[in-house]
Amino acid sequence: MTDAQAAFAKPSPKQMADAIRVLAMDGVEKAKSGHPGMPMGMADVATVLYSKFLKFDASRPDWADRDRFILSAGHGSMLIYALLHLTGYKEATKEQLENFRQWGSRTAGHPEYGHLAGVETTTGPLGQGLATSVGFALAERHLAARFGKDLVDHRTWVVAGDGCLMEGVSQEAIALAGRLKLNKLCVLWDDNEITIDGKVSLSDATDQLARFKASGWAVKAIDGHDHKQIQKALAWATKQSKPTLIACKTKIGKGAATMEGSHKTHGAALGATEIAATRTALHWPFAPFEMPEGIQKAWAKVGKQGAKTRKAWEARLLNHAQRDDFTRAMAGDLPTGAFEALDAKLKQLVADKPALATRQSSGEALETVFNAIPEMIGGSADLTGSNNTFVKDTQILDAPDYAGRYLNYGIREFGMAAAMNGLALHGGVIPYGGTFMAFADYSRPAIRLGALMGVRAIHVLTHDSIGLGEDGPTHQPVEHLAALRAIPNLMVFRPADTVEALECWQVALQHKKTPSGMCLSRQKTPAVRLTDAGENLSRKGAYELKAANGVAKVTLFGTGTEVALALKAAETLEAEGVPTRVVSVPCFELFEQQPKAYQDAVIGRGTVRVAVEAAIKQGWERFIGEDGGFVGMTGFGASAPAEVLYREFGITAEAVVEAAKARL
Amino acid sequence: MTDAQAAFAKPSPKQMADAIRVLAMDGVEKAKSGHPGMPMGMADVATVLYSKFLKFDASRPDWADRDRFILSAGHGSMLIYALLHLTGYKEATKEQLENFRQWGSRTAGHPEYGHLAGVETTTGPLGQGLATSVGFALAERHLAARFGKDLVDHRTWVVAGDGCLMEGVSQEAIALAGRLKLNKLCVLWDDNEITIDGKVSLSDATDQLARFKASGWAVKAIDGHDHKQIQKALAWATKQSKPTLIACKTKIGKGAATMEGSHKTHGAALGATEIAATRTALHWPFAPFEMPEGIQKAWAKVGKQGAKTRKAWEARLLNHAQRDDFTRAMAGDLPTGAFEALDAKLKQLVADKPALATRQSSGEALETVFNAIPEMIGGSADLTGSNNTFVKDTQILDAPDYAGRYLNYGIREFGMAAAMNGLALHGGVIPYGGTFMAFADYSRPAIRLGALMGVRAIHVLTHDSIGLGEDGPTHQPVEHLAALRAIPNLMVFRPADTVEALECWQVALQHKKTPSGMCLSRQKTPAVRLTDAGENLSRKGAYELKAANGVAKVTLFGTGTEVALALKAAETLEAEGVPTRVVSVPCFELFEQQPKAYQDAVIGRGTVRVAVEAAIKQGWERFIGEDGGFVGMTGFGASAPAEVLYREFGITAEAVVEAAKARL
Repeated sequence: MTDAQAAFAKPSPKQMADAIRVLAMDGVEKAKSGHPGMPMGMADVATVLYSKFLKFDASRPDWADRDRFILSAGHGSMLIYALLHLTGYKEATKEQLENFRQWGSRTAGHPEYGHLAGVETTTGPLGQGLATSVGFALAERHLAARFGKDLVDHRTWVVAGDGCLMEGVSQEAIALAGRLKLNKLCVLWDDNEITIDGKVSLSDATDQLARFKASGWAVKAIDGHDHKQIQKALAWATKQSKPTLIACKTKIGKGAATMEGSHKTHGAALGATEIAATRTALHWPFAPFEMPEGIQKAWAKVGKQGAKTRKAWEARLLNHAQRDDFTRAMAGDLPTGAFEALDAKLKQLVADKPALATRQSSGEALETVFNAIPEMIGGSADLTGSNNTFVKDTQILDAPDYAGRYLNYGIREFGMAAAMNGLALHGGVIPYGGTFMAFADYSRPAIRLGALMGVRAIHVLTHDSIGLGEDGPTHQPVEHLAALRAIPNLMVFRPADTVEALECWQVALQHKKTPSGMCLSRQKTPAVRLTDAGENLSRKGAYELKAANGVAKVTLFGTGTEVALALKAAETLEAEGVPTRVVSVPCFELFEQQPKAYQDAVIGRGTVRVAVEAAIKQGWERFIGEDGGFVGMTGFGASAPAEVLYREFGITAEAVVEAAKARL
Repeated sequence: MTDAQAAFAKPSPKQMADAIRVLAMDGVEKAKSGHPGMPMGMADVATVLYSKFLKFDASRPDWADRDRFILSAGHGSMLIYALLHLTGYKEATKEQLENFRQWGSRTAGHPEYGHLAGVETTTGPLGQGLATSVGFALAERHLAARFGKDLVDHRTWVVAGDGCLMEGVSQEAIALAGRLKLNKLCVLWDDNEITIDGKVSLSDATDQLARFKASGWAVKAIDGHDHKQIQKALAWATKQSKPTLIACKTKIGKGAATMEGSHKTHGAALGATEIAATRTALHWPFAPFEMPEGIQKAWAKVGKQGAKTRKAWEARLLNHAQRDDFTRAMAGDLPTGAFEALDAKLKQLVADKPALATRQSSGEALETVFNAIPEMIGGSADLTGSNNTFVKDTQILDAPDYAGRYLNYGIREFGMAAAMNGLALHGGVIPYGGTFMAFADYSRPAIRLGALMGVRAIHVLTHDSIGLGEDGPTHQPVEHLAALRAIPNLMVFRPADTVEALECWQVALQHKKTPSGMCLSRQKTPAVRLTDAGENLSRKGAYELKAANGVAKVTLFGTGTEVALALKAAETLEAEGVPTRVVSVPCFELFEQQPKAYQDAVIGRGTVRVAVEAAIKQGWERFIGEDGGFVGMTGFGASAPAEVLYREFGITAEAVVEAAKARL
């Protein structure tokens, strides 16, 4: 052991925190980009949290009963990368730290879910880590109610910055967490008074402690560099009956020789000179990414200290009556027979041919699966009756027993969608939640993040067109189908009738790694699938619903409530001697995954092609080509009864017929 | 006068409020849809506000110094329609009330800006009226600083419901208003404890008074049916040095015979039986939409009582030194010579050929117009340096003098965009504000509402592709161009170089009724417009940037930073003997407005067509047809340096050449 190393033989907590600081500043310096200020500022808090409180075992990042650590201030990603590296997470190697922010590395600019075990959720878009953490904390409470404390008893710790707290979604999150009394959720606010543009006071004068308190949180302020205060506060947090906020007063870039406290440490490398001076100031003579043995050992010990608890938990699981169910649920697998009732209902529907709004059809689908799949947790952003998301006799998920399966999310679309991501990421829960489709704009940032992470969250989006009627253009989706279809890895379903609604729900539930948007009508529409196909046709994304009588001259495409218009138009055309096919397109994305031969057959290039959808054309060229006909919207809707709007905006079977004839 | 009428000869304030109640319940009943509960609940507050405080003259809805009344809880639209009708706004006829929510009427389901004078902003998407009102109140403070109290001295009154307060954007709005000490903003909260799904307590336990107080508001709670308390509270509000919240405890559906206080009055007609019973209970024997003479007179008097003040103001304006400037600014007209510096700079640029990031080019554009157009107010959601939105030496717009022209919006993208709508709607201000383009998802609901209303708000969206680099996929727009282009009446600009950036800014500023998104690169890109075209080519949306040498065999399309790739590819193709055109497409929407012949000429159908854009393909079929080539993204980005990402995702000149050759 060299003299330099000897000084770290039995490192103090401060020295352990300095290890994080140095890794952060060196990682950013090597990448020539990144955010050193936040990891340096929160190194002390993180050190106390990981070494004294966080329940984890670095060798088993997938331990179901681990505490969850969420870095809501995701730009400070070197904080979590340093912690995972130091505590011995296998994937978080020195090479990974050295390749911070480089192509192919696991250490992306912001923590990305699925890249590195120990990263529980993707963060970076501010406020969302905090909002997602509500879902994590809620999943824990619910699963504890379902499986008992022996299997489920862990905490959710969040590091959030000023940006997270300024974003509006933070209010939705804290109000929801406060209302639900999620006492095992603790937010560690990096109260450094600095944002990118300068001091927080430039743009904010909010008393955050008072604000959180107003929403039902227990709050406390501490010196975020005083390890004793930190330890005391974290201990306090574990004893509260409410969610807790600890305001950790810190200096951004803490430890930096001359730049400590400056917003210049926020989003750029410190530079060679400052880094050299900081090494001196911290008495840290080691090369970048090199850790003295004492530090290595001390942190490795932290990484292992949960092993005993983990093993005891595994032993409990082994003998637990609900073992198989718990394991299955956490793996995200559906129970055997999950779709028995759905399959039976499908057979019945082709006989019954109900004319329902597709939101009602979605409700019927839920009736068949909700009780068969106990992981499903429903909810709505205060539109339960309109969204048809509530299954009869379901208990409300609420304090104090949390066994219920339906959430009153409140008028908080974004917060709901983010919480749904957290519920799904935690595991053991399959969330769905409803709002009006126009307000997918509100929840869009979380829908996108869910798509990026690949989580099974099902967004029920009702009132999917001008068919909403009198509420008018603010509430009528026009561009939302196109805008949602634009999001990669999101399945956007628009079922045409009850059969398709059941099929789409089945597909959505079967995709573990893809979120779905279920776009559903307010207004009634006739049944269009009148025979039993013997398979789930919606799974193919698009399929021939009606063949032409003879060699097809025309192909009509439609989705949702407009499929009925296409069928009616086809009837007219056929009556006039024009052989016409009708293709239903419940999901663009699934269609793109079909073999090319199938796609070509469905599209029918040799025919005149016309699509009808009560929305804008963007994206439909994929089906109708450059010269195809499109019957839909070209601008915003209006306030009037639905049938008047369809007529006035010219979305009619007659218009479809005309568009086809004009091209024959 | 009949006996029935005699009882209303000198109506009490309560009777005046009942007139609103009856109109609301009858309007909704006639339409068989709508929201009677809120107007009935807030009728007392509205009556006191309009009759004792609101500065307005019903005969001059466009009086610049009127108080602004914002119905943030827009579903209660019958409240404002009733008020406008009773006080004598010309357009708000009895027929309009009778045609509530019908095709072609001015009385849409939610109040729509531009349909009916007296409706200051479109509301309905919850929280946004409140967030927009911050812009109104701020515009007032700023214009008062610019033109003086003689011309500008009015208040902004907002009626908000529980839904508005639950939405996260409300926090961004109240924190911003509190920080800016907008003391002439008063929010009247309809504290009725009811949401659609039932009691507010189902989903919320927030102490709203404490929450507003924490963000710097003065707060007060009153009985919202006690006219004396209301009057006292409104008087109190006019004397505060902070924005004010008045919690008006009300009963939803107040006055309804048996349903008062029930969430059933929220969103549906009361029904004939309840309405008859309510008529009896309110001693209101008149037919639907029929007002007793006394009520008519009393309300008409309210509508006229501001006339004297308005006339005095007009007299002051007539003799005011800044009259012409004020009138021009409020009309939204640009000053003479607004683009002199810009035009001069354009000429210089074709000589200088600077290689800049287009965000820098946008900054250059701002340098040429910001001081020439004093109505412009800039800002950023805490990304000033990155967005290049700050023009040197600009004073910050802040309390107490408000004369500045740059806003620190804080980390509040949605709140910023909504405030920008309010600034624009107030008049006298042309707002622009910056954030990263990926976070247009956060501000999207307000961008959409601005497009629906037709306001000149310019959204500066920098870091417009994977060219953002190391921050990774959360921060890299991929689907955002398509998603923004999907919004009707929004101009989405993506300039290719400094010349185009200046041109796009000019077009954006010249469109009074269309918001713009200015999509700008983080990374440098060469100049592509090397000669003076003598006109603003970006105005056409797309134009031939480079002609083919000979009869064109290939047309390459590009936008923004990828235009340079298209030019490079064209060079290679030409060298290999393939005559190739290059078309720059700075704005899809403007292209669609060109004559068909121009469109056809630009698109060049007979040629092989390939587009390159570092984003998804959706929407490009319009240019490249069904079989054209597209070089772009098919999924989310990644964290790495920009040039690595372009290479790894295959967005290169070589790929463009290959895509063209494969089709030759």
